[in-house]
Amino acid sequence: MPTPAPRPVILDGDPGHDDAVNILLACSSPELEVLGVTTTYGNVGLERTTYNARVVRELIGASFPIYPGADRPLVVPRLSAEAVHGESGLDGPDLPTPTREAESLHAAQFIINSVRARPNKITLLPTGPLTNLALAFRLAPDIVPRVREVVWMGGSLDTGNWTPSAEFNALCDPHAARIVFESGVKLTMFGLNATHQAIANPARVAAFRQLGTRVGEFTAVLLEFFAEHHRERYGWDGGALHDPMTAAYLSAPELFGVQPMWVDIDTTEGPSAGRTVCDVWKVTGQPPNADVALTVDADGFFALLTERLGRYP
Amino acid sequence: MPTPAPRPVILDGDPGHDDAVNILLACSSPELEVLGVTTTYGNVGLERTTYNARVVRELIGASFPIYPGADRPLVVPRLSAEAVHGESGLDGPDLPTPTREAESLHAAQFIINSVRARPNKITLLPTGPLTNLALAFRLAPDIVPRVREVVWMGGSLDTGNWTPSAEFNALCDPHAARIVFESGVKLTMFGLNATHQAIANPARVAAFRQLGTRVGEFTAVLLEFFAEHHRERYGWDGGALHDPMTAAYLSAPELFGVQPMWVDIDTTEGPSAGRTVCDVWKVTGQPPNADVALTVDADGFFALLTERLGRYP
Amino acid sequence: MPTPAPRPVILDGDPGHDDAVNILLACSSPELEVLGVTTTYGNVGLERTTYNARVVRELIGASFPIYPGADRPLVVPRLSAEAVHGESGLDGPDLPTPTREAESLHAAQFIINSVRARPNKITLLPTGPLTNLALAFRLAPDIVPRVREVVWMGGSLDTGNWTPSAEFNALCDPHAARIVFESGVKLTMFGLNATHQAIANPARVAAFRQLGTRVGEFTAVLLEFFAEHHRERYGWDGGALHDPMTAAYLSAPELFGVQPMWVDIDTTEGPSAGRTVCDVWKVTGQPPNADVALTVDADGFFALLTERLGRYP
Amino acid sequence: MPTPAPRPVILDGDPGHDDAVNILLACSSPELEVLGVTTTYGNVGLERTTYNARVVRELIGASFPIYPGADRPLVVPRLSAEAVHGESGLDGPDLPTPTREAESLHAAQFIINSVRARPNKITLLPTGPLTNLALAFRLAPDIVPRVREVVWMGGSLDTGNWTPSAEFNALCDPHAARIVFESGVKLTMFGLNATHQAIANPARVAAFRQLGTRVGEFTAVLLEFFAEHHRERYGWDGGALHDPMTAAYLSAPELFGVQPMWVDIDTTEGPSAGRTVCDVWKVTGQPPNADVALTVDADGFFALLTERLGRYP
Repeated sequence: MPTPAPRPVILDGDPGHDDAVNILLACSSPELEVLGVTTTYGNVGLERTTYNARVVRELIGASFPIYPGADRPLVVPRLSAEAVHGESGLDGPDLPTPTREAESLHAAQFIINSVRARPNKITLLPTGPLTNLALAFRLAPDIVPRVREVVWMGGSLDTGNWTPSAEFNALCDPHAARIVFESGVKLTMFGLNATHQAIANPARVAAFRQLGTRVGEFTAVLLEFFAEHHRERYGWDGGALHDPMTAAYLSAPELFGVQPMWVDIDTTEGPSAGRTVCDVWKVTGQPPNADVALTVDADGFFALLTERLGRYP
Repeated sequence: MPTPAPRPVILDGDPGHDDAVNILLACSSPELEVLGVTTTYGNVGLERTTYNARVVRELIGASFPIYPGADRPLVVPRLSAEAVHGESGLDGPDLPTPTREAESLHAAQFIINSVRARPNKITLLPTGPLTNLALAFRLAPDIVPRVREVVWMGGSLDTGNWTPSAEFNALCDPHAARIVFESGVKLTMFGLNATHQAIANPARVAAFRQLGTRVGEFTAVLLEFFAEHHRERYGWDGGALHDPMTAAYLSAPELFGVQPMWVDIDTTEGPSAGRTVCDVWKVTGQPPNADVALTVDADGFFALLTERLGRYP
Repeated sequence: MPTPAPRPVILDGDPGHDDAVNILLACSSPELEVLGVTTTYGNVGLERTTYNARVVRELIGASFPIYPGADRPLVVPRLSAEAVHGESGLDGPDLPTPTREAESLHAAQFIINSVRARPNKITLLPTGPLTNLALAFRLAPDIVPRVREVVWMGGSLDTGNWTPSAEFNALCDPHAARIVFESGVKLTMFGLNATHQAIANPARVAAFRQLGTRVGEFTAVLLEFFAEHHRERYGWDGGALHDPMTAAYLSAPELFGVQPMWVDIDTTEGPSAGRTVCDVWKVTGQPPNADVALTVDADGFFALLTERLGRYP
Repeated sequence: MPTPAPRPVILDGDPGHDDAVNILLACSSPELEVLGVTTTYGNVGLERTTYNARVVRELIGASFPIYPGADRPLVVPRLSAEAVHGESGLDGPDLPTPTREAESLHAAQFIINSVRARPNKITLLPTGPLTNLALAFRLAPDIVPRVREVVWMGGSLDTGNWTPSAEFNALCDPHAARIVFESGVKLTMFGLNATHQAIANPARVAAFRQLGTRVGEFTAVLLEFFAEHHRERYGWDGGALHDPMTAAYLSAPELFGVQPMWVDIDTTEGPSAGRTVCDVWKVTGQPPNADVALTVDADGFFALLTERLGRYP
């Protein structure tokens, strides 16, 4: 049986520690072809997340282009997350200095152009606020039914992490999230309820280090840094590795259990602002608009991740 | 060691199947002295909930007075729950016809008078919308610090049952809930996250029937009726017996695990209207204003309930 | 033709300068019989507004009872207006020390008892936040259709005075205003759009002083104090004498032009919180729920006021 | 003294009767150079407004390019106004069939490109929902300080026309309006409070007809059609000619009185959704972010309009 052609993907995010690992995973996964990385504000500012994407590209000598996008949310003021990710957004490991520049085309326009060029083929993997996707969908409504799939890390079926109600990516730009969730695009959501099932505990971090490679060490140091916040807040033995679930889901969907559900986005400015309101019990009568990830095979996920990152020399 | 004096309580609710069982439990618990039952709209209209309270009193030949209160929420329009509780709010068993009338004093005024008469002694057990308590607290702010404790069945730390965000009692009158939660009163919340841990499965229902008493049969039939909705919605093997946890908690606190937490009430009219926003991870920096029930010893709870209801002849 | 019996009224307010003048006007108007004054927080705290009502009663030797009511809004936190009314709420004139105490019955209960005792007879003249009326209407829904009429000073058809959208009395307790406006009670609203048409300019203040009486001097000094804020904010030649329009409207309705209108109360916590949304152009299709005052014969109003206050010795 | 170079403008709107007249006015005003017309949904759908812009261009043989933009608001669902403008959005006169097509570049991108090409020179005249401008400002934040000026027809300082609180253009996309008003761009708002001061009464309509030209007749018939709605709703003797005030303001600013003011946009979904909350009395302490038109020399405005439209052969 011939190997299927790899699936073309655009990674959209705000690297950030776990976004960085998602790029590493996607680029080492034969199932995926990374067409480009689009950046957004989020964990830190746009300038820094774009720089960080370039750092990761430099680290692995990859060739994908990088397109900076939104520097702030559509409507509400910008939050930031320096407390979790450090000033640089990649605090922790020694980082190479990137040589290649980012492109000048806007992230949203790159997404539009790509989908128009290859209709029904391209999967978008956003791992930050959904501002770039929302801008693309509003600028070019024709692309919405031509996106193959969106797999987003964000939101939560249960509790939030930035407010009691809301996860950071969703809270950053609730209006963008609402635009994407109401768009009719095929959509899978990896919220905190899923990502909190896969903790990068010391044994798992050690596995990355034991790869004995620069990428392995980079990942281990990143995760150790990232762990501190999780230890303090949740009392956990390591950080949740949120974003790489999106790439892992495409490579190994059997590791995850998802359920179709109606998800509404709270765009009030009350105490539930930015909540991804998941109709678990089908009380609204609304038809599902997203597959919501519910279960994660954490060991399988980390095994995949370690194997894939081990492909870097 | 002498037996401590029983704790004086006022039961406030909208009977309703599980409210009825809460009355049965409270009246058969030597740890409690039921000063009165105050009624509110909720599962069905006020007239019917008041009638139902009288039915339950008749059934067990109890002597507590009944005070009707609010017939609608403070601000938002009234919901109703006939689909779950049937037209009467007690559909299922044959019911005695009550002989004694309800009192004419308003529920809120009875609460006020009672607390003023016995400061720091009285515990309120609301198992419906919090409108009566809110009215009492606003009419007589002096009583708030003189209430010994409020133990409420309502809200949810995770998903709702009437909307994806909100539990019925909280959704009925979010403003009343906000008044009570912001009042500073000592407060424990038994939300769906707790009550859904204690399902009245067929074996547990059978235990009530095997009491061989009128109350046992009444409870069994009530629960069978109540179970239908839960089976359909959640695929469960019986109904969640929400309200009796409040009386059980006073009699046997060791059956429950609670945690102090900041709880905010969503009074927007958006998709999270009526949500009890629980700051599980302490992300707001707000000091706790409620103990939120997290764990339930379900077997212990049903054993207690069966033993207590077995005391009725 | 025999003189009609005077109309029984209850004055509900937060004296405050213009509330004080409303009491003076009502008590000197043969068309009105003041059954009592109920007080609320508002311009200053409840303790002070109740004291001020007692001061005014002392000043004119009146016999009406005074019932303190709400010390805070139903839902939102309390605002205060010391900047406009001074620390005492009656800064300016020398004030007599009151001898008679306030009653212990709650304002809302007094309103309930009064309406039940004289159904369809009693007119309520609230000139502050509507909290007392809202509490009465929720505690005793039976009285709503038995109130003869409510004439409120509050709200605005156009711009607010405390926020760009909202008038102070409405903003203090939007939920109470919503309860009253949605109740179906016969209701007239004197908003800022009306009251700003009657400025207490120096000539009009002089007319009070020329009465040569204690009440005349009291009123003149009150108005001079009250004028300062208006001069500064609006550049006007005196203060708007908001509250006495309610009593004047009952005595001399021909001085005012009102129009039936649908009025919705904004209970969001956004920039229009507390706005009395008046459907001037009938764009909602909703039936009118209030008469909104649009025009004022300012000279006639001040002439009436001067004549009436001149009746005090 | 040499004639100053004409001011380059981009007209952004949803023609629509009064938008059409604004195009006619701008194209016949020597003070203005129309770089292009960008279209948006609004009075009718995008396809139709774009067609209508082409009709107007055809009518006057103009050469400006037309760029279609947003077909819906950023966040909230689309409203429509067929009841006012008729199915076509230009119901009334016989319309020429346009020959030249619209461009394929998106309206927002045309605005971005234009401002970048001529920084600090270009004035934007939006006369519909602000979606195109909001998209341009979010896609290219660098242009915001390089726009010379925005003059918008929309909003209202007092009452709305689509809800009691909101004017149609503002209500269509409150989030877009908020983006533009919070952007820091130099901004003038012609709200209903201003535009309702210039009614196209029969004498004024007759003046257009008396031009004896195709454009004059077109304008007269348009206005007669447009008048019907205004007569019915407001009892006025003609329609308010909202949109042409934007072009007129640039040509003859002396006809209008404006005042700098803080304007907040209500993005709640309550009864004041879409309200342009104008801080007339400076109660918020916020610095002005817009010049709000307060007064209009209606005769001067119509004289200007008639003279300018008279320039068409």
